Amino acid sequence: MSLDKTKLSLIGRPTPTLEAPAKVQGLADFVTDLRLSGMLHGAVLRSPHPHARIVRVDTSKAARANGVRAVISGCDIPKVRWGHDVQDQSALALDRVRFVGEEVAAVAAVDEHAAREALEKIRVEYDPLPAVFTIDEAMAEGAPRLQEDIPDNIPQTKELRRGDPDGGFMMSEAVYENVFETAMQYQGYMEPIGTVADVGPTGRITVYAGVQSIFVCRERVAGALGIPLSQVRVIQPHMGGAFGGKLVDEPNASLAALLARAAGRPVRLANTRLEEFHAARPRVPIRIRIRMGASSEGKLLAKDSDILGDAGGYCGRCMRVLNNTLVRMDNCYRIPAVRARARAVYTNHLPTGSFRGMGNPQMAFAHEACLDHLADSLGMDPVEIRLKNAIQEGDTSIHGWKITSCGLSDCIRKAAEICGWKENRGIPDRCDGPHKLRGLGIACAVHVSGNRSHGDWDGANAEIRIREDGRAHLVIGEGEIGQGANTVLAMIAAEAIGLPLDHIDLSSADTDLTPLGYGARASRLTFVAGNAVLRAAEKVKTEIVNLAADVLEASPEDLEIRDGKVSVSGSGDKAITVETLIKDSIFRPGWEPIVASATYDPPSSIPDDSRYGNVSGAYTFTAQIAEIEVDTETGCVEVLRLVAADDIGRPI
Amino acid sequence: MSLDKTKLSLIGRPTPTLEAPAKVQGLADFVTDLRLSGMLHGAVLRSPHPHARIVRVDTSKAARANGVRAVISGCDIPKVRWGHDVQDQSALALDRVRFVGEEVAAVAAVDEHAAREALEKIRVEYDPLPAVFTIDEAMAEGAPRLQEDIPDNIPQTKELRRGDPDGGFMMSEAVYENVFETAMQYQGYMEPIGTVADVGPTGRITVYAGVQSIFVCRERVAGALGIPLSQVRVIQPHMGGAFGGKLVDEPNASLAALLARAAGRPVRLANTRLEEFHAARPRVPIRIRIRMGASSEGKLLAKDSDILGDAGGYCGRCMRVLNNTLVRMDNCYRIPAVRARARAVYTNHLPTGSFRGMGNPQMAFAHEACLDHLADSLGMDPVEIRLKNAIQEGDTSIHGWKITSCGLSDCIRKAAEICGWKENRGIPDRCDGPHKLRGLGIACAVHVSGNRSHGDWDGANAEIRIREDGRAHLVIGEGEIGQGANTVLAMIAAEAIGLPLDHIDLSSADTDLTPLGYGARASRLTFVAGNAVLRAAEKVKTEIVNLAADVLEASPEDLEIRDGKVSVSGSGDKAITVETLIKDSIFRPGWEPIVASATYDPPSSIPDDSRYGNVSGAYTFTAQIAEIEVDTETGCVEVLRLVAADDIGRPI
Repeated sequence: MSLDKTKLSLIGRPTPTLEAPAKVQGLADFVTDLRLSGMLHGAVLRSPHPHARIVRVDTSKAARANGVRAVISGCDIPKVRWGHDVQDQSALALDRVRFVGEEVAAVAAVDEHAAREALEKIRVEYDPLPAVFTIDEAMAEGAPRLQEDIPDNIPQTKELRRGDPDGGFMMSEAVYENVFETAMQYQGYMEPIGTVADVGPTGRITVYAGVQSIFVCRERVAGALGIPLSQVRVIQPHMGGAFGGKLVDEPNASLAALLARAAGRPVRLANTRLEEFHAARPRVPIRIRIRMGASSEGKLLAKDSDILGDAGGYCGRCMRVLNNTLVRMDNCYRIPAVRARARAVYTNHLPTGSFRGMGNPQMAFAHEACLDHLADSLGMDPVEIRLKNAIQEGDTSIHGWKITSCGLSDCIRKAAEICGWKENRGIPDRCDGPHKLRGLGIACAVHVSGNRSHGDWDGANAEIRIREDGRAHLVIGEGEIGQGANTVLAMIAAEAIGLPLDHIDLSSADTDLTPLGYGARASRLTFVAGNAVLRAAEKVKTEIVNLAADVLEASPEDLEIRDGKVSVSGSGDKAITVETLIKDSIFRPGWEPIVASATYDPPSSIPDDSRYGNVSGAYTFTAQIAEIEVDTETGCVEVLRLVAADDIGRPI
Repeated sequence: MSLDKTKLSLIGRPTPTLEAPAKVQGLADFVTDLRLSGMLHGAVLRSPHPHARIVRVDTSKAARANGVRAVISGCDIPKVRWGHDVQDQSALALDRVRFVGEEVAAVAAVDEHAAREALEKIRVEYDPLPAVFTIDEAMAEGAPRLQEDIPDNIPQTKELRRGDPDGGFMMSEAVYENVFETAMQYQGYMEPIGTVADVGPTGRITVYAGVQSIFVCRERVAGALGIPLSQVRVIQPHMGGAFGGKLVDEPNASLAALLARAAGRPVRLANTRLEEFHAARPRVPIRIRIRMGASSEGKLLAKDSDILGDAGGYCGRCMRVLNNTLVRMDNCYRIPAVRARARAVYTNHLPTGSFRGMGNPQMAFAHEACLDHLADSLGMDPVEIRLKNAIQEGDTSIHGWKITSCGLSDCIRKAAEICGWKENRGIPDRCDGPHKLRGLGIACAVHVSGNRSHGDWDGANAEIRIREDGRAHLVIGEGEIGQGANTVLAMIAAEAIGLPLDHIDLSSADTDLTPLGYGARASRLTFVAGNAVLRAAEKVKTEIVNLAADVLEASPEDLEIRDGKVSVSGSGDKAITVETLIKDSIFRPGWEPIVASATYDPPSSIPDDSRYGNVSGAYTFTAQIAEIEVDTETGCVEVLRLVAADDIGRPI
């Protein structure tokens, strides 16, 4: 089950994204471009308090306002809470608000103006509570609790120890310890979060939502409405980016659906850019106390880290993020002993969530800085210490990752070579003026290609139908968030079947019509969904080849398909186009269409409670070197040059 | 592969159509309810002449008119002609018009008013030609030809002879001969023909059309635009009836697509009710000269018929209709010798097409009248002569139909019994006044359940996906025209899997996402598509049962599924709901969703050139008795009572 890599005609060649024609002509429909007949416009009333008890919500005046078709508050919705690890948040605040911007009530009206005007007519009586704004305040003795039953405002903790870290530190020639903090960071996707929800005659809900996974969205909306999964259909329109921020940890889609159900009409509900800062789920700000030890030869001997993540008012995806901060960077190097603890901490901030790398960049920052300090203490070159410890093909990392392929050392060497690391490092006379200093810095990282974390399955499903004119339709529910996933998957299908790329078309991700897929997360689509597509493609190819074998009176093994033509290998004249082959084959007694479903679940395993386990079927590595200039008077940093050497497998 | 008929819980029980909630609440979107963003409105300029050469079409003034976005005439479209047997018609007249109402030019504008106003600005110069309005005029020597290369205006002829008709007539005790004529007849569906066509960024066309077969529509539109099938997607909205009149023999969908492509915007094009009379495809008016002979015992010995159908200006589906007129009624009785000829004749009428029964009712009228006359000549009762000749189970009819099940004789007896045939027939004193006469009349008919005529395949495809909450989604491209097909297919799926009906949902017919199906024609859906659904349901049921066998530690053969619950037969306590079973089974290593595709192609065979062949997998029979009263002064006929006894197999 693999392509002949010596005969690739599409894969690896520059290919415009399939979405380009729609996007450059302005014809792509994003969710807020949709206009359903009778569609209302929604608006959300948000908490002005970081922490307060809701005494009373009076929506009666708003409900009577001009053009208003529905007003809902926490009283009007099912008392359902969601969350990955702690079920603590509902679509509208039920009795308490825990951050400025929290959703308290929502209105659907005939236009946006009427909806926003009606918000002002909702009376909410709050009883303000003391709030906490830092993790230190939150964890302090006597601090106000965000949830009565969660002491110290720590809803989740994960601890692990492998090897003998204390022994490792004892044997270390150099030990470095420090605290690193990273900031909250908005994903900055071009298209704000938005939904159009429609309600059918039997109460079935159809949701058009710009989300990273239509199936996760379906689960969330069905949960919020208290109806079976099958009663919700989620369709993904064109999307303007996500970067981890559209995993439906916030309630926009659920609110749109609740409003649609209340009004009995379609409702459009989209964040303004300002609301994005009040209501989205930015990167978890993390404080890491880290300690690392190395031998005199620069071999890493031990690492100890204590990680605190600011979850904000609800736990959301915070612990999932911290799980990665906890272990991921340790799989980049050979390290014999590790102790680590990660805690999610409630504060009265906006709840936080995932952003590219999902907890990985935060630890990479701390980890790579540590390595530089250790190298410095030992009089070693930063490149050398990394090469000395870099993980290698065949290794099983300290957390159980099976490194079946690894170009990390090559990446480090290549990046150093390209930027002239030896020649250019620490040459002060290259600086541009008296206050300016130049320097070269290196950092490495490892990343997953899929992550077994949502149940013990990290697979993907794909279907391919051969149409009646010999072209192919790829049915896949993973979705396209603007990153080009559909183009990559179509290229794989085209290459594997042997059709030109423009003979493949794809359906939009749609929970009714495309098979289950987790969508764009954990860098899984090319590897995991790509392999599902490859398997489906191989199945339809086999059927096409068998058909052609009859027609060409040849053995199936001797046939190849290239560019839409089946021919006998090595013989130019015995050939037939797939189009003719299929057209001639149909409408005969017993004819069945060529359609294949396939699943690929990578050979990974679910991590145990201590996060030990081979979470992904393949790992990628990078070494990056930056040349920067610092103005020592203003503190300004300018990146002059960035060299990135990546081991990403085969570029599609 | 069949249901246990002793344990049916749904099939045969009165069940509201699945569409009822949408329709009674006014929430069903018919094609003209669709509003795509930027949608234009189309209008068609039609010929005022029954027959004329087009000298010149000047659209320049219309193109400059207010709000107009595109104007097209025959000059602007691919020179493509379509037709089932004769390719004689194009989406817009190319050089000649052949009926009043023929499409000459079309406009897309920002609203309907602007579009219709622009029509008046199109200048068409016609050179009128002599026209023919009856089949006699059309076939007369020296008559103007509608197509230069078609002599006598007869584009199609079909002749057959079986047995020895001349010998049969020689041996007949009674021979009856007469000419019967039937009229053109509009189908009278509630929703006029209409389309919304959209054009994508790469020229791909999406068509929303109220048609009986989305795949036939796709073929027609792709042909008219000169693009591959894959470049057209057809989606079926809710439909308000069809009755054979929406088989896309007229160019509405193609014109909408051509306009959308010309304007680069979505276009809505729908017939007014008046346009339906100018541009739809009513029932073919047929003239039948028929001669039938019977022995003294009333046994039919020979039949001879000469059939002329008024095709109108283009041949369209006329010959397909006449093929049925030619042979179908002969399969209702045992008859040893037949000679028949059918000819389609061009006239300058509106082209004609199919209407329920598709040529069958026209011959039934003539045939059954003949039988009555023969009975009369022989002094027999009309019921008796039918019982004497009725076809029987096990027969192969004179045209090769294999009658594997037949309740015709029972139907005749039952209808006669219910209406009191013997007691009430010919009792003049039951009449209501001096000018009024009452009478009882009987007629029988046979019909197909599918008809192998579109290539040598008359199959159907279905897919069933089990959703992640244990409910099922039925993916089928046959379509629902308002007749309840989706309800019947969902009932079959529910019954066969063992789920409640509301655990089944169906997708709309969509050429991109649902497998190929011919749609609603030839009474094929319940039998042919129903069997495909049954097969797919049996496949998913097997997978569910195998899953449950593991969980319940039972043998699969001992398990049954009823009402969404799997249990060990005869044991009440060992059971699990399908919902729990599926929810617990997913998200485990290697998990694959339960999805099954199935095809059913009935055991029929394609008729040969003389129309000999077992065209359908099952046949239905009817005997109907009407009691009528005729006012001999006014000619008014009143139907007082109608008794219908039908052998339709198992009612769903």
